[in-house]
Parts: sequence; C-alpha cells; structure tokens
Amino acid sequence: MEQYFVKEIINSNKFTIDETETFKHVAKVMRHKAGDVVYLVDPSEKLYAATIEKIDLDNNNILTKVSLVDRPSTEMPVKVTIACSLSKKDKIEWITQKSTELGATTIIFFDSKYSIMKWKQNVVAKKLDRLQEIAKNAAQQSKRRIIPQVIYVNKLQDLLNYKVEANLVAYEESAKQGEISLLAQTLNQDPKSVLCAFGPEGGFAPDEIDFLNQADFASVGLGPRIMRAETAPMYFLSVLSYKYELTVK
Amino acid sequence: MEQYFVKEIINSNKFTIDETETFKHVAKVMRHKAGDVVYLVDPSEKLYAATIEKIDLDNNNILTKVSLVDRPSTEMPVKVTIACSLSKKDKIEWITQKSTELGATTIIFFDSKYSIMKWKQNVVAKKLDRLQEIAKNAAQQSKRRIIPQVIYVNKLQDLLNYKVEANLVAYEESAKQGEISLLAQTLNQDPKSVLCAFGPEGGFAPDEIDFLNQADFASVGLGPRIMRAETAPMYFLSVLSYKYELTVK
Repeated sequence: MEQYFVKEIINSNKFTIDETETFKHVAKVMRHKAGDVVYLVDPSEKLYAATIEKIDLDNNNILTKVSLVDRPSTEMPVKVTIACSLSKKDKIEWITQKSTELGATTIIFFDSKYSIMKWKQNVVAKKLDRLQEIAKNAAQQSKRRIIPQVIYVNKLQDLLNYKVEANLVAYEESAKQGEISLLAQTLNQDPKSVLCAFGPEGGFAPDEIDFLNQADFASVGLGPRIMRAETAPMYFLSVLSYKYELTVK
Repeated sequence: MEQYFVKEIINSNKFTIDETETFKHVAKVMRHKAGDVVYLVDPSEKLYAATIEKIDLDNNNILTKVSLVDRPSTEMPVKVTIACSLSKKDKIEWITQKSTELGATTIIFFDSKYSIMKWKQNVVAKKLDRLQEIAKNAAQQSKRRIIPQVIYVNKLQDLLNYKVEANLVAYEESAKQGEISLLAQTLNQDPKSVLCAFGPEGGFAPDEIDFLNQADFASVGLGPRIMRAETAPMYFLSVLSYKYELTVK
C-alpha cells in the first residue's frame, strides 16, 4: 500500500489531503475510491492509516479518517550525511534516489576541482527542487519516515558548515593485511551522526584531501576495489545500515 | 593506469596483446605509445605491468615486456553469488556493472513468477554475451582479478544447481528490536561462499519462497526500508565486503 508524506501534523482522527500532487496521485493515478486505505506520514514522523471517506473532485481534496499505526520507524538510528562531488544530471538523480532508499538523512552535492560539472547560481534552486522531488518519491516508495534534505554547496569549504559527530572522506587507504579498517574503527565508537565526503570520478585533488583532513575529516578506505563515484556512497550507506540495524545485539 | 584481462597465462617476460578489442582500446582509444605502461591480469589472477615495446598496426598486436606486480588481490576472500530476478534491460545491465564493481563472483539472472520480463531461448546467448562484456569492462575499471561469470536460468528450480556453502533469499524478515539479524548471524559463521537470491519488484510468490526455504535458502532481511529490486543486491555485496574486508582483526 502506498505511503504519502503530508506537511501538517495529524492531530485528530480526520485529515484532509489537499496537496495538489498527492491528491492527483491518489485520485487520478492510483484511482482510489472511498473505503480504500493509504498510509500517511506527518512531520512528527508518525505513520497513519488513512481510510478514504470522500474524494472531492470539486475542491481537489480527499477527506480521510486516520488512525495511528504502531510500527517501528524505518529510519536508521544514526543520522547519515553523504556529500558527493557534482556529476552529470543522471548520476546525481540516481545518487539521490538510491541514497534515499538506503537511508541517508542529508544529501549534499558540492563543487570540487575535478568535478566535471558546475551549477550556475541561477539554476541551483531549480535543480534542488527536482532532486528534492526525487528524494520525496523515493522516500515514499521505500516507506521512510522523513524525506532526506538535498543541499548544494559551491565551495568545498562550505562543507564544514555541515559537520557532524564523525566526519569522513572516502579515499584510497593503504589498508594493511589483517588490520581493522578506519571505517570499522569509527563505527565501533557508535557515533550518533556520520558524514562522508566522496570525490568525483577523477578523485579529490591532494590539497582538497589535506584541507578536509585538517578540518578533521578522517580518510577512510572502502575496500580494495575501485568504485565509480556513484557506487561508493551506496556502499557506505549499506555498511551503516548493516552496522546499526542488523548487527545490534 | 588502465588494466586489461588477457586470456593466456603470462609465463615469460614478453607478452603480445592480440585480442582485437584490447588492441583497439590500447592503440586507438587510449593512443598509447611505445614506453607506456598498462596493467594486464592473466587467468591465474596475477597482475603484470606491461611496458609497450611496439604497437604493430599491420598485425594488430602490441608487443610488451611484462613484470609481475606484487600487490594484494582485490578479490573478496569469500565467493559471492547474487541471483536476481529478470528485469528490464537497463536494470539488468546496471546490476551487472555495479555487482562487478562491488566484488560479485557470479551473477545469475532467473525467471520468477512476478518477473516483468522473460527471455526467449533464442536471445539468451546474445544477451549473456552483452552482459559478460559489461562485466569485463567493469572488472577492468574496478581493478579486479577475475571477471564475474554471468549466468541465466529460466526456472527457479535450476538455481539449486548453483548452491554454495551459505544460501540465502532476501525477504522481509520480521526483525525484532535488539535481535541480531539472520544475515549477520550467517556471516559471523564465516562461510567461504555465499549465494543470495533477490526477487523482482513485485517480490517472490509465497510458493517460490517456500520452495527456496525447503531447498535450504534461509530468508534474510536487509533492514527496515523497502529497496528497489536492483538496490538490494548492492546492499548485500557492500555488507559482504565490509564484513570480510574491513572488519578483519
């Protein structure tokens, strides 16, 4: 059954769905009728089952009767920010969709020296709107309780404004045989929030790595194989989920 | 520096690159000259630095001087087979590319009840050739020592021919709070080979799950969020890498 995010807190047993896009999807795309049930998630991250009472085609809204669903949250117990160097449109959209499915809290795109793209200031808002829409749809599909926030920073320096408890940068690490990786060491300390920065296809410039290291971003390796720029963040998010959601004793 | 797979074992300090596609890539696409170095991986999974001595445009081959490179293998210490329900062409190609980057040993595609696609018998060989080519290119790019094998089986039953030490099927598991997941339990036993089957977008049919369970495929959950069919195998491979390559003490 589909899930939709609503913008107002649900605080009674009645709720009117009136956001244009959600209305269209429920009434026109899915062709729901009175009596059908859809799930709603409100800004307090609570999940409700909404039974449709009336689809009002004159006023473009849907009257529903709602009841709280007592189901564990699908959000990770750690807040994960991935920060990816700007890339081609389809890759960025793909990263946004997949990172949302995989549980990211915040998705930052940034300019770096070897990025093949740069956004002009006058297109940033439009591009972010589009990515935020992709994140919303992916979050609904994967049954999340929040929509990850998509952010753009045009200077690597500005990434420092988003620092959290554990800050990392994915970089080829000379892992020694039989040595536990720095990533595993970091996660074993159970940080409550983690940020990892990922370079472009051509990698970070050495001075960018120096800059991040000096700003307390620890360089971590993600295994011996070379991953494409868009694959590394997926690896990272999957590992975080495994560590925080599947190996808890 | 690029890496190429060669089909013969390298057993002297000279080697002639004569596979058409590799010749073209080195001589025409990358425009290498005498003195340039490329990496070669032979069927014994050894890595060689090959210094180009002569590009012979008349005979379409490249004479090189090779020396063994003593670098740890990039292969996972566990053999991982992912078996994915058949899907659209672009998704299958994407799964093949990404699974290769993430270290899969074998990639199987199979028909299942809710698959949206079915391959006719007369296109199977051609489709597999194309996927095998994608796997080869991705393996070269990610600096692997083997090219994963891509296989097609047209009945779920035939998947049983590919069983390994630990056999799993990704399925919504009712994970209880604070309980270590069955996936983590399985991996803690350090199997030397793992296979995981992934259903189509619409999921496995209940009798397919029963069939797999009875054939000793354990149902494992991959966290609380709903992942698209192509995302789940990436999650799985990333977790295997973390567990076997980054957390070894």
